[in-house]
Parts: sequence; C-alpha cells; structure tokens
Amino acid sequence: MKDQFTIGIDYGSLSARAVVCRVSDGEVLAEAESAYPHGVMYDALPCGVPLPQDWALQHPQDYLDALYGCLPAALKKSGVPASAVIGLGIDFTGSTPLPLGRDGQPLCFDPAFADKPHAYVKLWKHHAATREADELNALAAQHDPDLLLRYGGRVSSEVLFAKLLQILHEDPATFSAVDQFMEAGDWVTQCLTGESVRAAAMAANKAFYYKCSYPAFLEEAYPVLRGMRDTLLRGRMIGIGQPAGRLTADMAARLGLPAGLTVAAPHLDAHAAVAALGISGPGDALCTLGTSGGVLMADTAFHPVDGTCGITYEGMLPGLYGYANGQAAVGDILGWFADHCVPAAVTQEAQARGVSVHQLLAQKAAALRPGQSGLIALDWWNGNRSVLQDMHLSGLLLGMTLQTQPHEIYRALMESLAFGLRRILDASTAAGMRLNTLRLAGGISYKNPQFVQIISDVTRLPLLGSKQVSAPAVGAAIFAAVAAGAYDSVAAASARMNCLSDVRYIPNLANSVLYDPLYEEYKRLHDYFGRGGNDVMHRLREIAAQA
Amino acid sequence: MKDQFTIGIDYGSLSARAVVCRVSDGEVLAEAESAYPHGVMYDALPCGVPLPQDWALQHPQDYLDALYGCLPAALKKSGVPASAVIGLGIDFTGSTPLPLGRDGQPLCFDPAFADKPHAYVKLWKHHAATREADELNALAAQHDPDLLLRYGGRVSSEVLFAKLLQILHEDPATFSAVDQFMEAGDWVTQCLTGESVRAAAMAANKAFYYKCSYPAFLEEAYPVLRGMRDTLLRGRMIGIGQPAGRLTADMAARLGLPAGLTVAAPHLDAHAAVAALGISGPGDALCTLGTSGGVLMADTAFHPVDGTCGITYEGMLPGLYGYANGQAAVGDILGWFADHCVPAAVTQEAQARGVSVHQLLAQKAAALRPGQSGLIALDWWNGNRSVLQDMHLSGLLLGMTLQTQPHEIYRALMESLAFGLRRILDASTAAGMRLNTLRLAGGISYKNPQFVQIISDVTRLPLLGSKQVSAPAVGAAIFAAVAAGAYDSVAAASARMNCLSDVRYIPNLANSVLYDPLYEEYKRLHDYFGRGGNDVMHRLREIAAQA
Repeated sequence: MKDQFTIGIDYGSLSARAVVCRVSDGEVLAEAESAYPHGVMYDALPCGVPLPQDWALQHPQDYLDALYGCLPAALKKSGVPASAVIGLGIDFTGSTPLPLGRDGQPLCFDPAFADKPHAYVKLWKHHAATREADELNALAAQHDPDLLLRYGGRVSSEVLFAKLLQILHEDPATFSAVDQFMEAGDWVTQCLTGESVRAAAMAANKAFYYKCSYPAFLEEAYPVLRGMRDTLLRGRMIGIGQPAGRLTADMAARLGLPAGLTVAAPHLDAHAAVAALGISGPGDALCTLGTSGGVLMADTAFHPVDGTCGITYEGMLPGLYGYANGQAAVGDILGWFADHCVPAAVTQEAQARGVSVHQLLAQKAAALRPGQSGLIALDWWNGNRSVLQDMHLSGLLLGMTLQTQPHEIYRALMESLAFGLRRILDASTAAGMRLNTLRLAGGISYKNPQFVQIISDVTRLPLLGSKQVSAPAVGAAIFAAVAAGAYDSVAAASARMNCLSDVRYIPNLANSVLYDPLYEEYKRLHDYFGRGGNDVMHRLREIAAQA
Repeated sequence: MKDQFTIGIDYGSLSARAVVCRVSDGEVLAEAESAYPHGVMYDALPCGVPLPQDWALQHPQDYLDALYGCLPAALKKSGVPASAVIGLGIDFTGSTPLPLGRDGQPLCFDPAFADKPHAYVKLWKHHAATREADELNALAAQHDPDLLLRYGGRVSSEVLFAKLLQILHEDPATFSAVDQFMEAGDWVTQCLTGESVRAAAMAANKAFYYKCSYPAFLEEAYPVLRGMRDTLLRGRMIGIGQPAGRLTADMAARLGLPAGLTVAAPHLDAHAAVAALGISGPGDALCTLGTSGGVLMADTAFHPVDGTCGITYEGMLPGLYGYANGQAAVGDILGWFADHCVPAAVTQEAQARGVSVHQLLAQKAAALRPGQSGLIALDWWNGNRSVLQDMHLSGLLLGMTLQTQPHEIYRALMESLAFGLRRILDASTAAGMRLNTLRLAGGISYKNPQFVQIISDVTRLPLLGSKQVSAPAVGAAIFAAVAAGAYDSVAAASARMNCLSDVRYIPNLANSVLYDPLYEEYKRLHDYFGRGGNDVMHRLREIAAQA
C-alpha cells in the first residue's frame, strides 16, 4: 500500500481542491486548487439577467473546468505516477441541484435556457426557497412527523425538494424542460464514469432519503414527483465507500489518469471530513470552523436531538446514524468585522507588525479575561442554523460603552460563536449522546488558535487539530481507497489514513468557570430573541424588505 | 444700546469660550476659545497619582488661565472698546464642585493636598459617587418623596451632595480640611468680584435647592452638613440675570476691562442656552446636540414628568419651572463609531472627497430609507439619563447581517438617538406639557444636518437652528445685559438678543410614518433591557468590574 495512492477532490463553494494521498498512511503528497470562473452568482447571470435577494447560483461548467485544473496539477506536483493511483473520490456541497435537459446536458448549457435563472445550479446557500420549505414543513407535520423529528422540527430551505419546488412554482416552463435533477456531486461523478448513480449519503442528508426510501407524502402531494426514483431522481443508490463506476477513457485522457480507475461514490463535503478526522463512532464530534460551522457526530443509536439540522441513517458513516448541526456563519462573522468595522489605526498596526488584521485582533483579544469587555453577542449575522433553524434571525451586540475597543468586540464575537457551538453540543448531550473530544477542520482552526482556545474553555472539551486543511478531500481519498478495495471498511481506512495532528487544545478551567455565567446570559438572549419572546429580528427584516 | 456690549463666557468640559455681544440685537462681534491645560483628568493627577474608574477631575487654575486667554482675545478681535462693555456673565458645567481650604484658596493649590484626588474639582461627569447617590435616594424616599418626584424617582451621582459625601466617605481627612464647597462657576464669579454669592439656579439644578431651601433631611442625616448655608455652602443666593457683584480692580487690569463692571450671576451651561434660543415659556424645547444631549423645557406649572432628570423652580428661567432631561451621549456615540468602527476604506474615501468621516457616513446614510438597514440600536453607550436614569446601562445594536455596511450602522445610531429623544419628549407631553418646536444648540446640530432631519422626522416637530455655536455664551451675555440694567427682564432681553437663525427643519411625514413601527421596537427593547425584563447590562458590567 506504500506505493498506492488515491486522489480526493473537495468541491467547495468557490473552488475545487485535489489531494494526492498515500493509501498506507494517508500522507498527503500534494494538493492543488482551482477556483470556479463564475464563483457564486448572487446578483446576476453571466448574460446579465439580475437575480433576486437570497439567490445563490453556480455554473456547472465551472466544476469540470476546476477538475481539469486541480487534479492534473496535484498529480504532477506529487510526483506520483498515474499508474500508482488506484482510486478517485469527490465530495461536494449540497443540496446543490443541477437540472438536466432531455439531451442529458445541464439545462443552462442549452442557449434557449441560458437566460433562465432556474436552469442553473442552486448552490447549497441559495436561500430563496423559503415558501417551499414552509410548504414542506406543513406537509411533513401532517404526514410524516418522524421526518420532522429527524430535522429538529423544521426542514430548511437548503434541502433538495425546496429548491425543486421553487422552480416548479416560479418557472414551470423551465421545470417542464427538466429530464432529471442531480446533485452536482452526482453529476460530476457521472461525468467521470458515465454511470447513472446517486450517492445515498447525499440524498440522506439533503433529500430526506432514510433507510432506502424517500418520504411517501412527497409523491402524494406533488404529482410531478410521482415515480421520481425512475424519472426526475433516477439512478442507482450507492453507499459511502462504494464504487460509483470506472473512469471513462475520455476523462482518463483529459485528467492524465488510467482509464478504468475506480471512482468512489461522492459524499457531502463537510461529512467527508468525519472519516478524515478518524471518527468512526460515538463520543467524538467533528467541528468545522470555516466561513460557516458544522458540528457532526455519529452514533449507533437514534437520539431525538432538539433543533438538529438533520439526523440521517448512513448519511455520514456506513452503518451509523449521523447527526448534523451547524452555525450559519463563523469565519464569515469575523471576516465581516475585519472588513467593515476595523479602523485604519488597527489596519496600520497590523501592517507594521507584519500580521493580518485577524491575527492582531485575536492576539489583543487573548489578553482579555472572560467577561472583561462587558460585551455579549448573538452569533446570528447569517441566521441561526442550530438549534433554532431560523435563517431570518440577525446579529446582536450588547454592552458597548464609549470605551469599547475593536479587539473587545472581536473577542465578544468569538465568544458568541463558542457559545453558539456549546448550545448545539448541549442539545446533543441532553439527548443522551456522549462527547469526549472535538476534532477540528476548516481554515479558521489553523488561522485563529485564540478562537479555538476559547471554544475549548467554553465547552470544557479537548480539541484535536488536523494536519490537513483539506480534510474533506482526504475523506474523499479515504472513500476512494475503500472503493478500490485497499481497505475492508471506511473505519479501517480512517484509522490509518486520518489526518489528525499532534495539536491539542486543553480547556483552561479557570476560564471555563468564568464563562458559565456569560453562557447563561447568552442562552437568555438566545431564547428571548430566538423563541418568540421578541420577534423584533423578523419584524425588522420584513420592514427592510419593504423599504 | 447699539453702542453697548456684554461679554458671555461659556465654561465647557474642555475649554472656555468668550463672546462679545451687542446689547441691542445680540449680534456676536467676536469670540475666542481657550482650552484647559489639564483638560479632564480621568486617569491620574498631575503628580501621577492614579484615579479609579469613573472619575473625572479638573484643575481650578485652568478656569482662570482660560479666562485670561479667551476674554481679552475676544474683546480685541471684536474691536469693541473696553469702555463700551457694560456687563460680564458666565455659564458653567455643574455640579462641578470645588473644595476650598481655610485660606480661601482651592484645596488642591495647597501642596499638602496636591496629591489628594478629593482635593480637586469633580467635573459634572465624575460618576464615581454611585454609593452616595444610592444613599441619597434611600433617604429621599423615606423623608422627601416630593424631591424624588422632581428627579424622576431617582437622583443621579452627578448632583452636588453625592460628590461631597464621596469625599466624606473616602477621604475624611481631606473633607475635614475643607472650609466650603463652591460650584466652580460660583468660584470663578467670586474670583471676578470678590463677592461670596451662589447662583440659585445652579443650586436648584444640582443641589436640590427648591423655593428658597435645601431639603431638611440632608442636615438631619449628615451631621457635617448641619448649618451648611452658613458653613460649607455659605454665600448669598442670587437669581438668573441678577448682578453678582462688580469686577475687582485686579481682575479688571488682568482682563483689560473697566473696574466695577457688572458681573451677572453664573448659570448652568446648557440652561443658559434656553434664553439664547429665545425660549421664554411653555411650548418650545431646547435640544442640545453636543457630546451629550439636553432637552430643556420651561413651564408656568408643575408637571410630574416620568423619568425627568430634574424639575426646578427658577433653575432655568426666572419665575418658571424648569424641566431638564438629557441623553448621556449623543455626539460621543457617533464619535466612538467614527473613531473605532470605520474601516480604512471609508476613511480614505472621505479624504478623497475632502469631507470628514462623519460627513461621508451621514451623506451615505441619508440615501437609505427608514428601516432599510434592518438595524436598530439602544443609544446607551454612556448609560441612559432620561427617562431611565440608569448610568449602568450600555449600548445595543441588533439586526446585523453579513451585508451590513458602516453607514447603515451609523444611520441606526442616529435613529436610536432620535428615538431616545422622542422617548424623552413623549414623557413630557404625556405629563401634560405642550410642544411646538425644538430649538437647536450644540455643535452636532451644525455638523450633521442629516441627523437633525432624522430627529425632525422621528419627532414630527419642526426644528429651529441657531446662528451661534456658543449659544450658552450668548445666554451668559444676555444675563449680563439684564444684570447691567439694559433690559427689564430675561424674557425681554431674550426676545431681542436671541441667536435663532433662519434654518428650519420640517418633518418629512412619509418618513415619520415609517419611523413609528421602528420606534415601537425601540420602546420594547428600551423597556425590556431598561426596566428589569433582562438586567443583563447590569450583570455584564459587574462581571467586567470583577475581571
């Protein structure tokens, strides 16, 4: 196995990143990244057609172009001969559905639909299908309360069916031209293999697929969805670590890889990192600190966790229940602050010291004791994903005086994010789940050790770091190794190929004690503004939408 | 009267400003300003002795040095011959008490006390006498409920007796060396005239002096205060516009004015502006927009206004009840934001356009419609003076998203200040007072017309501007004219010498309608955080004090 390698590709929101991993120990020999030429389309289509608020589209050609860019680059950089590569896997954002036309091509490639927003890929963070989410919630409440239990009482507008139904409602002509809808991750896999398969894990997380079936009420409520497993959502379901097919000759030539190479089932991006961090069962949570935040746990049993974003079966790891929670913004909030609220003097000081604005603020903030700033925040700049599942909440900052300094606000924002994370973990442990460690992924976990220490202090948990920034890509490489037969199971591969580093954060319990009363304040504000005590955030959003 | 002039001097927190006014029409011929060499001492005495939090001291020599600077400079600039000056008046911050030793000199001039913080002048904004304010409130509740009714249920730590008692409690040795306490404004007047007089208006506003007496419970509760009108607070009480005495030969020589010149009773700074803005009775409010904010109204009758900072008799205008309310920070909040929260890009854009950061933010903010930003704030960065009278409240900002821009926050801050002002005005009208116009004073009213327009829109009131930035100094000059006998009454002098300009702000009623629901949100948050619904601001402040 020392001479065998797999390639994992992580399809993020703005770029794809390929890693070349040694099968024996997971060592990453090289990686390369390619940005999507169109990025995220928030405001307009390439042809200039404007997009309404809360839309977020992508162009499917970007996924192929990024693949052609990053994969050969990483392989070349690694020095690994193509013949030593035994498998390829990808992970992808989701639900990121792509409508395909009757010619089998993405509908937006058809010139007749190039100016139709609904013909493009709806990125996971497309938040305009709120009416459809409401509709799904009402139907589920009536027909499938167990489903709502698995989604914390409420499914979000990010799920597959909300996005499909938005097309049906807003542009039925485009909808009727659709031959099938695929998760973009499934589509890229199909482009690689020519096989029509669907990742069961992707469907489990984003399309209510549970123990081999979709909810029956969907086909009952929406005639267009009848028989969908043979029509709009056709394709063979495959599990995590299973082979999706073999690399076509055409793709092999384009990518410089052997034709017939094993291609693994795709996986949801953040979930792919769970195996990469060596998690194979209960007790450990993956904590992703990126632009947004994820908290992922696996368990042998079903626990009805309050406000969870999604409980799946085999949606995270084979044979286990997966518990997905998250924070709608983490790095995005700190980034907003650094971009919009930091005075020139701080920017200049950072330049003079040769550090980033984030580093300077985090260093200054680290000199404060918990509670010293007198500030508290609610980390809802992008809404609340868990445990309130309310994307229309907004940020709050309280306690400012005329003496309040930027690094104090920065610390309050980091603390609020740690409180939000603790609130999520509390819901899991309250439902009976064990928790021993947090495993870190995401760029912020490397860039902001002060923030990670605050998380450890607030949660009283040890945090374990990762050697590899691209943990999801390592996960994809692990699934490729399993699909190629190098390991018997994902757990066995994960035990050898994981990318855990020696970095450990241990809670400073003196700080933990100081944080407890602040966390109580956080929870009081959380429930007041988040659970109907004062719906001012909703009302202000409505007023703003009218203005 | 066209050839007669008076000089008014406004003693502010950081400088003194002299104006030379024509008696016939109030025309300001010249003005000049002198900063206090020691400014406000927040952190340490000149000798290095550190000061605790919430202290704010001044050095009395600064008042004389500033006088010697600004008065001759203004006179010279005006071209008015000294012989044409018929009177001199001053206004001063308060309560700004100065302890005098048995030699008649400020105690801090004595080398034995130069290192004693309690030997210095406690500026109005010295906020460390909270325990003493609590004590006074408890006593008043028991013995003099009418007093509390006049102070909105609660006297503040800014009043004279809280400051005196703090010395007694914390440094009895220094207290016992005090021969008498004078308001700094009375002391400067004594330096000018050699006469031991006290401004009744100053005592009315800051020492509970009401219809010719101090509250009896003070002398009963505190043995050191017994007989205080003959000891610690001795001196003849004089009313607004009355002569305090005549300029001494020594002072006349120093200032280049005729010896024997009439010097008027001093007045409290903001209150002096009421006459300057032509207010002589019910229906019009002076609205001061400076670092902090004042709302001053006069009435022929007593109205028990909820949460008022102080209802006096003859503390504002002769023969009338005076109603003083205020906001603990106005320009200070906008200044805090401009100094601490505005990114380099905005600073650079302002420089490129040749405007101040405030001007740029206000211009951009003016392009927004009410409610468009989705933000709301509580304007409590420096606590709440009216109507909650709680200096330990703090600021709140709510509604932020990842798209929130600096000028949107700036607008939310301006709006919150306007809502805070409306809340004060509502309390007055609810108590039966009439309100037809707001009259503007204070630097912000000139610098930020967008803010003034927001106030007009939020309050639905017309706002009248002032020709003169130094309205209190014009008021002092008006009182000097009355004291010198040029007019029969303050009202008569004010009708001729006021400094109202032609600037008018008329409410945009379309905006007023949009502001009403936002004001309801403000009030809901105001009461929740300000009236015990959630005392998180107090608890965070206590936690911060311990940290």
